[in-house]
Amino acid sequence: MTSWTWHGGGLEAARRHYGGNDWIDLSTGINPHPWPGADTHSIDWQRLPERHDLAALEAAAAGYFGLDPRHVCAVPGTEIALRLVGGLIGGTARYVAPTYRTHGEMITGATPTALDEAGSGTLILANPNNPDGRTLPPARLFELLDARADRAWLLLDEAFADVDPALSLAGAIDDARRLVIFRSFGKFFGLAGVRLGFVLGPAPILDAVRAALGAWPVSAAAIAIGTAGYRDHKWIEAMRGQLYAEAAALNAVLAGAGHRPTGACPLFRLVEVPDGMALFEQLAAQAILTRPFAGQPRWLRIGLPGGDGLARLEAALAHG
Amino acid sequence: MTSWTWHGGGLEAARRHYGGNDWIDLSTGINPHPWPGADTHSIDWQRLPERHDLAALEAAAAGYFGLDPRHVCAVPGTEIALRLVGGLIGGTARYVAPTYRTHGEMITGATPTALDEAGSGTLILANPNNPDGRTLPPARLFELLDARADRAWLLLDEAFADVDPALSLAGAIDDARRLVIFRSFGKFFGLAGVRLGFVLGPAPILDAVRAALGAWPVSAAAIAIGTAGYRDHKWIEAMRGQLYAEAAALNAVLAGAGHRPTGACPLFRLVEVPDGMALFEQLAAQAILTRPFAGQPRWLRIGLPGGDGLARLEAALAHG
Repeated sequence: MTSWTWHGGGLEAARRHYGGNDWIDLSTGINPHPWPGADTHSIDWQRLPERHDLAALEAAAAGYFGLDPRHVCAVPGTEIALRLVGGLIGGTARYVAPTYRTHGEMITGATPTALDEAGSGTLILANPNNPDGRTLPPARLFELLDARADRAWLLLDEAFADVDPALSLAGAIDDARRLVIFRSFGKFFGLAGVRLGFVLGPAPILDAVRAALGAWPVSAAAIAIGTAGYRDHKWIEAMRGQLYAEAAALNAVLAGAGHRPTGACPLFRLVEVPDGMALFEQLAAQAILTRPFAGQPRWLRIGLPGGDGLARLEAALAHG
Repeated sequence: MTSWTWHGGGLEAARRHYGGNDWIDLSTGINPHPWPGADTHSIDWQRLPERHDLAALEAAAAGYFGLDPRHVCAVPGTEIALRLVGGLIGGTARYVAPTYRTHGEMITGATPTALDEAGSGTLILANPNNPDGRTLPPARLFELLDARADRAWLLLDEAFADVDPALSLAGAIDDARRLVIFRSFGKFFGLAGVRLGFVLGPAPILDAVRAALGAWPVSAAAIAIGTAGYRDHKWIEAMRGQLYAEAAALNAVLAGAGHRPTGACPLFRLVEVPDGMALFEQLAAQAILTRPFAGQPRWLRIGLPGGDGLARLEAALAHG
């Protein structure tokens, strides 16, 4: 079943293949507790989004990321942004592997590398990384950035950085620095269906991104929900604490089942087992979808459960 | 005020500049009667859209356009699609002018041409055209397509073709033909804020578009609303009739004010006057936003009014 190893989120496909009802999706790193305002906001679907509404979204996001709005460009999902910016930067590039699949596709001919062998050319890197949850401190990121100097780019995927804002290099974005950062709205806010992401970078890069996307890059819903979400400081602060607490509980359940979970991003954990696909199948038989990896047959990524998900995961692990 | 001549839809900017309340936006070609299901559909914002839901949207759209779903690719707005496909096709190109601004930007170095001087190279063409509403019969389009043979492309923007499906060349899409068609959801369905469009073309072109956009090209809302909208044959049929009737009424009002409206697309009309900007200002002073053109100072495009908009337009024209 290689389709399970491609991307997470294939819940309907899993339901059709394995049967069963009441599936839990732990195959992604999306917060199981969505920001609650999405359904209460009325969306003006009729009109084209206006320029000042888009600017307000980018200003709200910039305030949340911690940099000047002129360095922030909204895009219809980080996935598109990675591919678009990769095409703009081009040239010879490496990506720190293992990581998110798209990092290997965003610049033609990019080759995988270990972090310590990254050299001084253009580098694609996620922090925190996915799927292993590895995090690097900003000091290490600045070393990597300095190694590129004015010859090559650091393309930094911060899709999972929201939970620990101290990890972000957003404040270092500058027209004179070859640093581009990718941020995602849907993961931390638990609203992946909105399709909203951001490119943070020097003005000429953002100009090129805007030229490729045109005047109305994101939907009226993305503007309304994103603007209000990023301004909801109280929810953001509370959610960070809640996710760390729940990740600790997930760790305890995994450890209780004899696993040694790795990763510092609360939205998912990676476990290494003799046969990742066997554990995937064991959990799928109990209507729990997780994420195996074709190139890493010993790995299984397990997203943070919400509701009664943790209790069901605990029972399913014991049932093997 | 060159900003009014850039794109339509700047209602908030108009409100700030001219004051007044209760503005009517006649600056775009968006149907003033939106498909009524958008607000009643519950949207799953939380999850990533699944592949089979995207396939269902593309199948519903293909049924509506009249071709095989394998030739249909959903995109987050026609604007992005024009720019993306333009970049994929590249080369030397001409666009039939005057037309929608983006046609001149989608292929670097493209030059404007009159229809009768289009030659045999790659050609960008809208049918119906915007802003003049000029329509070409399929027989003429096939002549233009044949003139390109297997040497160059016909890139056909059918963003305004919904009202008269007999105009569309969608059924002629084939892997062996150098024809790409762009369709828009938001204009005819009156839901431009959804950001949903389609590329119709040979499989290799669609493969390249999908590679550029990644696995989740459109939002959960675009999938839910678009799929249901395209399946609502009853609304579609009734709306076509309604729009033709309302366009006839708009024609009568414009003629009554001494204008000779041109165009065959019911969603907008073009009038030619001694000073387009003066008429724009006259209407703006009465809180009606229309669309002037920097390069065509005698033109004013007037979108189809909804509700009491026609009566207000009639009064505002008489008030000059």
